[in-house]
Amino acid sequence: MVLQVRRKRLHVLLWQRAAPPYEGMWSLPGGPLGADERLGTSAGRHLATKVDLTEIAHLEQLETRSDPVRDPRGRVLATAYLALVSADAEPRIPGDTAWHDIQDLPPTAFDHGSIVGSARERLRAKLSYTNIGFALAPETFTIAQLRNIYAASLGHPVSATNLQRILIRRGVIEATASAARPTALGGRPATLYRFAAQTLVVTNPFAAFRPPSPVAPGTVPGPDPDPSADDDQPVIVAEP
Amino acid sequence: MVLQVRRKRLHVLLWQRAAPPYEGMWSLPGGPLGADERLGTSAGRHLATKVDLTEIAHLEQLETRSDPVRDPRGRVLATAYLALVSADAEPRIPGDTAWHDIQDLPPTAFDHGSIVGSARERLRAKLSYTNIGFALAPETFTIAQLRNIYAASLGHPVSATNLQRILIRRGVIEATASAARPTALGGRPATLYRFAAQTLVVTNPFAAFRPPSPVAPGTVPGPDPDPSADDDQPVIVAEP
Repeated sequence: MVLQVRRKRLHVLLWQRAAPPYEGMWSLPGGPLGADERLGTSAGRHLATKVDLTEIAHLEQLETRSDPVRDPRGRVLATAYLALVSADAEPRIPGDTAWHDIQDLPPTAFDHGSIVGSARERLRAKLSYTNIGFALAPETFTIAQLRNIYAASLGHPVSATNLQRILIRRGVIEATASAARPTALGGRPATLYRFAAQTLVVTNPFAAFRPPSPVAPGTVPGPDPDPSADDDQPVIVAEP
Repeated sequence: MVLQVRRKRLHVLLWQRAAPPYEGMWSLPGGPLGADERLGTSAGRHLATKVDLTEIAHLEQLETRSDPVRDPRGRVLATAYLALVSADAEPRIPGDTAWHDIQDLPPTAFDHGSIVGSARERLRAKLSYTNIGFALAPETFTIAQLRNIYAASLGHPVSATNLQRILIRRGVIEATASAARPTALGGRPATLYRFAAQTLVVTNPFAAFRPPSPVAPGTVPGPDPDPSADDDQPVIVAEP
């Protein structure tokens, strides 16, 4: 399934079925696995041929659905993939497909509505401990633009200040030498940022449970002997 | 695949193959999907019948492997499941199966060594943002015992102090009225804890990116206007 942030909302690409079962309802684009094909290759092939989509920034396996009655025509197992497209891409899509706001889906075929829900949970989780935002963001962006992408994907407002501080501290994003063109309102041009990596990296591994580092001689160990070991925990100077 | 912490090390249950292909090598217990069976049901059935394992505290789908040549006998797709067993369970297992330290595996059949690696990564990630430890821990435990389980599963030392503070603050574990029997060394008996829930819950959702709460009138907004919104971020009183 393909997800993209469009007009500050997370969207999923759906294909309207022209024949039974579920005629007229909306389904995830896909198709049968080739005899000598891997699942990931197959997912990419179906997206390229059925919805003309080749600009996928990240593709990962989501899950395999196996309810024996999930397809009224007979036993079909389906392995769902999550494909992410940058917010500034404008893929050409066929007339029988359309982008739908993930929070306002039309009636969906098979178990596809539930699969979309799983994809959303996966994306939310990975935004918190990986750099997966690289696949949703344009190559360069202002913090305000990135905030909008995170907010759309997480489904709640996000503080631009927190986002900038945390992602820079983790080394997930970095400033470029460029600045966004000033708006009509004037004011200082906003710095443009980019993701440091364009492939998936775990950026916040188990921060909370990292072991304390050895305490240097002469220092008094506090509740977090080495606060720098957890880049989301600011240094504690005094407890209130 | 079945994981259990045994003698302070994470172990995986493997079955020694008695026939080709990969005769004599070790593989993950499993078998074919029944015609009217779901994948999860099938995984549980094979574990119950092949390795006599019924004490599974948590079972979740890991991933589906599809390399066309992963099985020399022909095209076989395999959906791997992660099954967790409590540290105090002693399942009876047949003679051709054995627990292996996950960091010291014998030669494995098919792509099973790589699947074990994926399972380990999944477990490590989920320990940081869910209560999945409930499935590895006994019903009640001291913090020292829980620390050993987390350290074995994460593969690095863990601070008992941090672990206790974070898991209690998140509501993941809670103290019971009981205490562990005093050791031969004497000293105060250690409090026994338990997990608050025995099913999987996301306990630390996207903490870093939560929106700031409205600031109360008369207070001065700091860099984290509402530190309590992120339960892993201690209150900042002053930056050094």
